[in-house]
Amino acid sequence: MTQGYDAPPPGDTAAYSGRVSRDSTALFTDQYELTMLSAALADGSAHRHCSFEVFARRLPDGRRYGIVAGTARLVAALSNFRFGDPELEIVSRFLDDATVEWLRDYRFGGDIDGYREGDFYFPGSPILSVRGTFAECVLLETLILSILNHDSAIASAAARMVSAADGRPMIEMGSRRTHEESAVAASRAAYLAGFTATSNLEAVRRHGVPGAGTSAHAFTLLHTTPDGPDEAAAFRAQVAALGVGTTLLVDTYDITAGVETAVEVAGPGLGGVRIDSGDLGVLARQVRGQLDGLGATGTKIVVSGDLDEYAVAALRAEPVDVYGVGTSVVVGSGAPTAGMVYKLVEVDGIPVEKRSSNKASRGGVKKAVRFARDTGTLVEEVVYPAHSDAPGAAGLEVTELLVPLVRGGETACEATTLEDSRSLLAAGLVSLPWEGLKLSHGEPAIPVRFAEPESRRAP
Amino acid sequence: MTQGYDAPPPGDTAAYSGRVSRDSTALFTDQYELTMLSAALADGSAHRHCSFEVFARRLPDGRRYGIVAGTARLVAALSNFRFGDPELEIVSRFLDDATVEWLRDYRFGGDIDGYREGDFYFPGSPILSVRGTFAECVLLETLILSILNHDSAIASAAARMVSAADGRPMIEMGSRRTHEESAVAASRAAYLAGFTATSNLEAVRRHGVPGAGTSAHAFTLLHTTPDGPDEAAAFRAQVAALGVGTTLLVDTYDITAGVETAVEVAGPGLGGVRIDSGDLGVLARQVRGQLDGLGATGTKIVVSGDLDEYAVAALRAEPVDVYGVGTSVVVGSGAPTAGMVYKLVEVDGIPVEKRSSNKASRGGVKKAVRFARDTGTLVEEVVYPAHSDAPGAAGLEVTELLVPLVRGGETACEATTLEDSRSLLAAGLVSLPWEGLKLSHGEPAIPVRFAEPESRRAP
Repeated sequence: MTQGYDAPPPGDTAAYSGRVSRDSTALFTDQYELTMLSAALADGSAHRHCSFEVFARRLPDGRRYGIVAGTARLVAALSNFRFGDPELEIVSRFLDDATVEWLRDYRFGGDIDGYREGDFYFPGSPILSVRGTFAECVLLETLILSILNHDSAIASAAARMVSAADGRPMIEMGSRRTHEESAVAASRAAYLAGFTATSNLEAVRRHGVPGAGTSAHAFTLLHTTPDGPDEAAAFRAQVAALGVGTTLLVDTYDITAGVETAVEVAGPGLGGVRIDSGDLGVLARQVRGQLDGLGATGTKIVVSGDLDEYAVAALRAEPVDVYGVGTSVVVGSGAPTAGMVYKLVEVDGIPVEKRSSNKASRGGVKKAVRFARDTGTLVEEVVYPAHSDAPGAAGLEVTELLVPLVRGGETACEATTLEDSRSLLAAGLVSLPWEGLKLSHGEPAIPVRFAEPESRRAP
Repeated sequence: MTQGYDAPPPGDTAAYSGRVSRDSTALFTDQYELTMLSAALADGSAHRHCSFEVFARRLPDGRRYGIVAGTARLVAALSNFRFGDPELEIVSRFLDDATVEWLRDYRFGGDIDGYREGDFYFPGSPILSVRGTFAECVLLETLILSILNHDSAIASAAARMVSAADGRPMIEMGSRRTHEESAVAASRAAYLAGFTATSNLEAVRRHGVPGAGTSAHAFTLLHTTPDGPDEAAAFRAQVAALGVGTTLLVDTYDITAGVETAVEVAGPGLGGVRIDSGDLGVLARQVRGQLDGLGATGTKIVVSGDLDEYAVAALRAEPVDVYGVGTSVVVGSGAPTAGMVYKLVEVDGIPVEKRSSNKASRGGVKKAVRFARDTGTLVEEVVYPAHSDAPGAAGLEVTELLVPLVRGGETACEATTLEDSRSLLAAGLVSLPWEGLKLSHGEPAIPVRFAEPESRRAP
């Protein structure tokens, strides 16, 4: 595999990422992973067989469930985790030659199992199990966590919003509030969680998320003349270009006048109006009445403006047809990271765990199952030693939660599409006990029980 | 300019960004910017001369100042904002042919002025002024805001941490808690704000940020044998590979035993020990006493573990030598986005503004100056109409805040390096009135005054 690399031009104006080769994902890595590798290669411990586990010690404050997201991005990124000359040039600044040579041939050759993308996770769920030599596994820590922590944080927040919207369509429009690349991953994660569409065109291209958009205040303001504003001219231009099915933004000046002008220009077949400011509930009722009075009974009301899951829920009784959600979804609505960690749990068959206060880990490779009643309602998740048999429970359905993702370094998962993951999540939301869907603080939706390890057979 | 494009392989396992061409930044854009363009091209308003302005209506809750960051990344990204065949294929799905053809030749040909990267901003500061035709300016909204909102949020949080650390070195190690690309930009923004180094290797490569790292619990756990843990073996391996100047992580098991073992293995010349859990203040004192008792008086104490600016400040009286900061800096310590907006303020010389409730904008192109006493202490920022003369104030130093970044589409700024911006910020922090550096809630560090527009001359 060739690894292209454009040396950045001098000066920090070369700072834009687009100038730098992206074939390799190997430097999305913390330096200490490489110095640990170097020390472990020197004393031979690098070749010990290790198991690492990704889990979250707790859910973000107030959350009842987390959503696993980013898995497909991760599997794709792994295949590009290679050290070519440009990457080696960087790491050779602080590594010995033997380590640099070892990295030249690096590719992950181990196994990875993981929770399905779109599935729930709870505190302690063994979301990802990575197995191989210490050397090959330790290098992946940062990349794995970056992708899972970001995408899961967004999907977890987005799922609550979708649940609060109770079936009404939601458009993700937060790209401008987050890093330009996070925005693309956030659009994907929000769609996975049940959002209907995104404003982000790169997410349309890269992930096939449906695109959507209305218009901005700037477009109305643009139609200002020396005599003053001309909202009607703006609306005429938009309808002429995009048809009467378009959504007109009616709150640039006076909303009541804006709605009247909108229907005057587009006729009662106008697709929608968007309200982006003010008391959205009051305004939605008022605008619905006005639209109906003008005969525009089919015109939809799109609301936006600092909506989060609580605001979405609070509008449930109002005549809102579509929610546009920006900032809150792309920043995880108060929980911008999922807090997942990547911990060594087993070395050559020996369970290991640290004892740091409040950061203790549970040794040993684990699996997990989830039990459900025959109605589909989830009851409990059980984490158990991977070398034991899966626990059962009389009268309950059981689902194995970890599926093979990588075997011997090669992608092992069947082609799971984003649509598959989206369906899994949608089905999951209806399987939670009703308390689990509450937006208020409380316990995780279902408990996670740790089955006692059996006395271990000698290796 | 050619625009390479690798069509993503089928299925969402192709989801990793590294597979997709990054030459063009044009699709880091909201769909509505393109539909507005289409409508404006059709009615001719696209060619009106417009001025857009970036500003923040308010600072994040509790903040006294914001830091402008991302400018150099933005200028570089602009030069790649082009629509090649792959980008046109996406937008042609919803745009008319004339608009698609117009986009084929698109390059921004206007002017941009902006606050210097590393400078302060306050509510209403005209951080960026973008001037050109409506068509060429409207398309840049999302890209501009994504970069400035992300990078400024991180730099603003990081500057508070640096200020709280009162001169002690800080290492940014939060990559794993944010999107893999945000992590690189966050490392850059934290360094700009005064952090000493980063763990992120891609930030080392791309932005020249100094790299740093210690080791992880996994490395100690790796040295477990069938007889149990062997912390000494782990420390020996690390010292053998990295020298006695290395920093040993001492809290995997028992900290007191860990410190004793560390000095036993490395000798009293050990570079540092890291404590990553527990009551860091208490432990730092205890470990300092123990180290001194063992003759390791020069061994530094590095602390990490959920540090934010408040925790950093709380440790100021303790014998801490280096702070390692992760999650809180990369997520903006409670304010993951800067909340900047991009608003049309003038059309063909006519000031325009929307009247939406709580979202009103101020029409007209603006400039800004900042006044300082001859001691260097800042007094006030004054925003004034760009067509007026700059205000003065007797006995105060005055600084123009907007500098040319782009002229006629070409980069106009002299080569400002990341180090230059870092120095500007460091100098800025000592110019704030002392209340401005308080971590507690309160007013912005200096007031922003809006000078009344003069009666306008006829254009």
